[in-house]
Amino acid sequence: MSNTLGNSFRVTIFGQSHSPMIGAVIEGLPAGFVPDMEAVAAFMARRAPGASALSTPRREADAPTILSGLNERGETCGAPLCAVIENSNPRSQDYDALRDVPRPGHADFTAWAKFSGHNDIRGGGQFSGRLTAPLCFAGALALQLLERRGIRVKARIAAIAGIGDAPADFARPPLDAIAAEGLPCLDAEAAKKMEEAILAARAEGDSVGGIVECFATGLPVGLGAPMFDGVENRVAWALFGIPAVKGVEFGAGFAAAHMRGSAQNDPFRMDGARVVTEANRHGGSLGGITSGMPLVVRAAFKPTPSIGQAQRSVSLSGGEDAELAVRGRHDPCVVPRAVPVVEAAVACTVLDMLIESGKEAESWN
Amino acid sequence: MSNTLGNSFRVTIFGQSHSPMIGAVIEGLPAGFVPDMEAVAAFMARRAPGASALSTPRREADAPTILSGLNERGETCGAPLCAVIENSNPRSQDYDALRDVPRPGHADFTAWAKFSGHNDIRGGGQFSGRLTAPLCFAGALALQLLERRGIRVKARIAAIAGIGDAPADFARPPLDAIAAEGLPCLDAEAAKKMEEAILAARAEGDSVGGIVECFATGLPVGLGAPMFDGVENRVAWALFGIPAVKGVEFGAGFAAAHMRGSAQNDPFRMDGARVVTEANRHGGSLGGITSGMPLVVRAAFKPTPSIGQAQRSVSLSGGEDAELAVRGRHDPCVVPRAVPVVEAAVACTVLDMLIESGKEAESWN
Amino acid sequence: MSNTLGNSFRVTIFGQSHSPMIGAVIEGLPAGFVPDMEAVAAFMARRAPGASALSTPRREADAPTILSGLNERGETCGAPLCAVIENSNPRSQDYDALRDVPRPGHADFTAWAKFSGHNDIRGGGQFSGRLTAPLCFAGALALQLLERRGIRVKARIAAIAGIGDAPADFARPPLDAIAAEGLPCLDAEAAKKMEEAILAARAEGDSVGGIVECFATGLPVGLGAPMFDGVENRVAWALFGIPAVKGVEFGAGFAAAHMRGSAQNDPFRMDGARVVTEANRHGGSLGGITSGMPLVVRAAFKPTPSIGQAQRSVSLSGGEDAELAVRGRHDPCVVPRAVPVVEAAVACTVLDMLIESGKEAESWN
Amino acid sequence: MSNTLGNSFRVTIFGQSHSPMIGAVIEGLPAGFVPDMEAVAAFMARRAPGASALSTPRREADAPTILSGLNERGETCGAPLCAVIENSNPRSQDYDALRDVPRPGHADFTAWAKFSGHNDIRGGGQFSGRLTAPLCFAGALALQLLERRGIRVKARIAAIAGIGDAPADFARPPLDAIAAEGLPCLDAEAAKKMEEAILAARAEGDSVGGIVECFATGLPVGLGAPMFDGVENRVAWALFGIPAVKGVEFGAGFAAAHMRGSAQNDPFRMDGARVVTEANRHGGSLGGITSGMPLVVRAAFKPTPSIGQAQRSVSLSGGEDAELAVRGRHDPCVVPRAVPVVEAAVACTVLDMLIESGKEAESWN
Repeated sequence: MSNTLGNSFRVTIFGQSHSPMIGAVIEGLPAGFVPDMEAVAAFMARRAPGASALSTPRREADAPTILSGLNERGETCGAPLCAVIENSNPRSQDYDALRDVPRPGHADFTAWAKFSGHNDIRGGGQFSGRLTAPLCFAGALALQLLERRGIRVKARIAAIAGIGDAPADFARPPLDAIAAEGLPCLDAEAAKKMEEAILAARAEGDSVGGIVECFATGLPVGLGAPMFDGVENRVAWALFGIPAVKGVEFGAGFAAAHMRGSAQNDPFRMDGARVVTEANRHGGSLGGITSGMPLVVRAAFKPTPSIGQAQRSVSLSGGEDAELAVRGRHDPCVVPRAVPVVEAAVACTVLDMLIESGKEAESWN
Repeated sequence: MSNTLGNSFRVTIFGQSHSPMIGAVIEGLPAGFVPDMEAVAAFMARRAPGASALSTPRREADAPTILSGLNERGETCGAPLCAVIENSNPRSQDYDALRDVPRPGHADFTAWAKFSGHNDIRGGGQFSGRLTAPLCFAGALALQLLERRGIRVKARIAAIAGIGDAPADFARPPLDAIAAEGLPCLDAEAAKKMEEAILAARAEGDSVGGIVECFATGLPVGLGAPMFDGVENRVAWALFGIPAVKGVEFGAGFAAAHMRGSAQNDPFRMDGARVVTEANRHGGSLGGITSGMPLVVRAAFKPTPSIGQAQRSVSLSGGEDAELAVRGRHDPCVVPRAVPVVEAAVACTVLDMLIESGKEAESWN
Repeated sequence: MSNTLGNSFRVTIFGQSHSPMIGAVIEGLPAGFVPDMEAVAAFMARRAPGASALSTPRREADAPTILSGLNERGETCGAPLCAVIENSNPRSQDYDALRDVPRPGHADFTAWAKFSGHNDIRGGGQFSGRLTAPLCFAGALALQLLERRGIRVKARIAAIAGIGDAPADFARPPLDAIAAEGLPCLDAEAAKKMEEAILAARAEGDSVGGIVECFATGLPVGLGAPMFDGVENRVAWALFGIPAVKGVEFGAGFAAAHMRGSAQNDPFRMDGARVVTEANRHGGSLGGITSGMPLVVRAAFKPTPSIGQAQRSVSLSGGEDAELAVRGRHDPCVVPRAVPVVEAAVACTVLDMLIESGKEAESWN
Repeated sequence: MSNTLGNSFRVTIFGQSHSPMIGAVIEGLPAGFVPDMEAVAAFMARRAPGASALSTPRREADAPTILSGLNERGETCGAPLCAVIENSNPRSQDYDALRDVPRPGHADFTAWAKFSGHNDIRGGGQFSGRLTAPLCFAGALALQLLERRGIRVKARIAAIAGIGDAPADFARPPLDAIAAEGLPCLDAEAAKKMEEAILAARAEGDSVGGIVECFATGLPVGLGAPMFDGVENRVAWALFGIPAVKGVEFGAGFAAAHMRGSAQNDPFRMDGARVVTEANRHGGSLGGITSGMPLVVRAAFKPTPSIGQAQRSVSLSGGEDAELAVRGRHDPCVVPRAVPVVEAAVACTVLDMLIESGKEAESWN
């Protein structure tokens, strides 16, 4: 189903940009877990709008309220955990004109066709990036659980507007070197140039895209499965659920297509009693199964389709060409706010595979 | 589940490289359809091994036998269609030495860990590219059904070993210009260089990778769904099930990350009564829903991990470093044979979405 | 997953008896539907507690609030519809003593084992009959949609405490003759005796069970599927999700086991252009597929396990025998309030099969 | 999907009564398991036709051939296991006349409607009881795996033609007292009367039905889940997949509906360190979760719809009433051969829940 991610750890997301609430129902949480709500809030704040000049001026507190799933001691009790977030600051009048003239690059036209014109046009409806807030809530819980297994999931901006961050060693990803403030990059100079590119695009009523690179370290060997339930299938399933993602690659990714086998293969070697690889061009998955090396995945985000410049479109009612200028509040670049969203999607998927493996079913508490 | 692709049109694949048979169970085929088995054979021949100097010398007839799913008139009857293919030419002795020393870039190590050493090592077991034969069988049926709706799915080699084919117009993909003989490319010169690169790698006991680009034309508007069941999620789910795929991108893909919104957005315009876009950087999907423009997707294949050169590895029993040279019969480049496999994966997914849409449930016969 | 019912029309239920909220996320609603909230309220009132001397004195308004899934015109918009109901009147202190001494006939012991003691014991947690309120909300919507197709779903009490209602003609179920007031039966005398039996049990600190019989009329031929996705499988899947159901049967049901084929088979005959059967011992399903005759299903409810009498149990902490008397507020018989719950479960399942059939995808609005 | 049973241990069944082969694809088998094929054959022989005067004269060897899923040592290797059984003895000409005149009590009419007349009419097509042979194959493997956990699954005939076997103690089901020869009952006298009733029906060109009661002992506490994935939901899902089943009940079942709570509740008590109940009216499941007491389930089988007597039906082509006499070879009573089928369905479901629980993931080998 369209709104559900995962098999054994399942997240069902609901809501639209301007519905009274958005939220998620989370199934498969191990019982006895006490969520650290301050850590949840800190994680969600990284995605929340209105934080800087780089993002939309729409402000939302994004404070999740838990409606179910905890017992009287605040522990997960085995029942689905539902959390909701209020849509406190919608300005629906911005969108009335868009019902007839679909925005290029948006889902307005395809949603109109699929839902026979009944789709919620306000703020992009269920296609809004706002729906990544409940995904981040679920991801925040997943991250806390993974941490208890020594698994860390962390992402950085690999590129914005064609400006690349410094390359990382996939076998030893420098998680702690990723900037905590500003744009999460390894190279502060690159981050500064990215910021300038975003502001330049904004000044011209335009937008830019970029690439988020995510690492998961501490994974056990043997998660995932061959063929259609492999690590890549599942992580890609999750990442393509984030609005604006147009490409996903693992390890060397598309660059691997241009290598020779002798250069791409990662030789095995012993590291004490562990089997490891020196480099990690395979990105942590072989045959759809984790190798114990860090998972490395990149997601390409197209530039925000909402731009201030006038664009050509059509009038759906009139069946004729039309022009539109998008008003409303938008991000000149979604990539900075997408970083925790990518972490959330990867964390939910890794936890799903970990729970499914059943190996450590007894020891969550 | 690991071996099943699709929701409403479902393909469950079974078998290992050297098991008596490999095959597929196909559920959701509309009743009353008479498969054209000659067309099936022609399609599968494009994937079959042993056809040219570019592929493995292993020869398999790959003739599918249908065990169930047809009535006495040869029509699909609503029951699951099971087809099997014999593994007539295994040389299992080639693989005995590999049980202890996993091949770099292969699933030997991860399968050993996941299945506690019981994995079928012969010919790569269930991780073998041979398992794409039953996927091609299912794809061949899907292609025939899609053709009745005016939907065509066709792929070409976009690059091998860093040598690119000519670019295509995503809005009007030149399906008929793709070479039918030799390497399926638009540019015969590029194809010739690719072939030389493959043979050069082969001569050095090495291998090369490449990129397959697939187009689906004639799609109705409105297939797919928002969030996790979108076109991109589902096509990527299928494509990452093909061994050696390390990246998947749609439309402009990773290149979109470096564009500005004003350049990436595809403006709408009327083409008679149809809403179309002039260019097709979005690759046929907006918000996870088909726009009616051609679906454009690329899959990056890493070079064949099996190479003749000596490689470093480990002895799993001894817990010590070891060296191995892979014997057996292998493709110096899987990309040519992967072209119909990509078509099959995309065709199965498009048919799945089409059947699920329910729009045309009555008119298959 | 445990809390989700249905494939194409999916209801995911969350909450516990004493969590802040309970609710449901409903996926697959056709777009453009305006729910009649007064009809929803009237339907849910039939299940709500506190309405008569026959039920628990716990009073809940059970007014659902819709958080998502509607556009600004109040139409379903294709996004998941989430509705919540407040738990306004919990008396959690009633249950503190039960954490150590599980109630016979309840899930206290099995939930304690499954969730390692973290289960929510308050009011039965997620095992409470209260969770049928969101199911009724979903059912109320399903009933409205089915009505537009000429499909009616209606249940009656077939028996309580061994007192049977008058038999119905399965081929022409007398839906309009079922009492609207008091106990929904065909025979007012039987209803009166049932009421007396409930009050007598209540007076003795005891409880009684019964049988609910449900009819669905106006079904098209051809819903459902052979084997594991048949009408019976799916309706039973739904009904066994209602607390206290211990048996489900269709048409003649268990009585069919004692008949001869010549007496059980329903001969076909023409009724104008329709194929019908004179009697309906098959209960509307042959081979898992609807025959066009009314669906007839019965669910057996065990007596409420919560009784005022002292019962033997164990102390989980002490590992020794113990005695308990259940306090709190309970129904001496859940059957009257279960009638709309059965209708809801059947309606959701019938709608699921109808949507899945795709036959009438275009014409919901 | 219609032909797939289970979540973590999944059985996908294919074939029709007269297709070249029938079979099953089994996913989720633990790796390293060596199936005892003699035990499989012995189990399947209990279901095979032609064994006695009580069943159809159609004879089939029912010898399964394993096509995939084993490594070269004959161990399960983590890949799907596909097994096929030949349809060696079809007599398709028997069924030609039935294409136009559907048999009462069969799926002929509903399949014709659902599959637009393309359904396989030969021998009942995919609706044939013959499809339970691959289910028995899967069940035979499940039984062997369960045995390693001390779990036994055994069924008996509780009634045929209204003649009941002796009652069993649900808390201590006498598995070893069930007859190994002839009709599997506790009471040899009852069995003899059942046999006479079957032969009497047969002599009159008629058929009889009955009830199969199945026990599963040795279950751990905590399998299953609340609401829609509970023990009852899942076992019923499986059992209603067996042709001719019209009712399913657990523990006291429908009889519980007539009891008072004080009589139906099973008080807990300590048995050493284990929590047990003295009686087992709950049938081993409380709140959808196993209690550790034996699972007790009964399935009601209607009489074989194929009878020799003339019956009224319709001509689908003519749209007029018609008469038919069923020729072909049929069982006067399917219940004796259904006993292992019920065991198989229950065993597959119990194994599915056991694997899903993840508690014992490490120790299958």
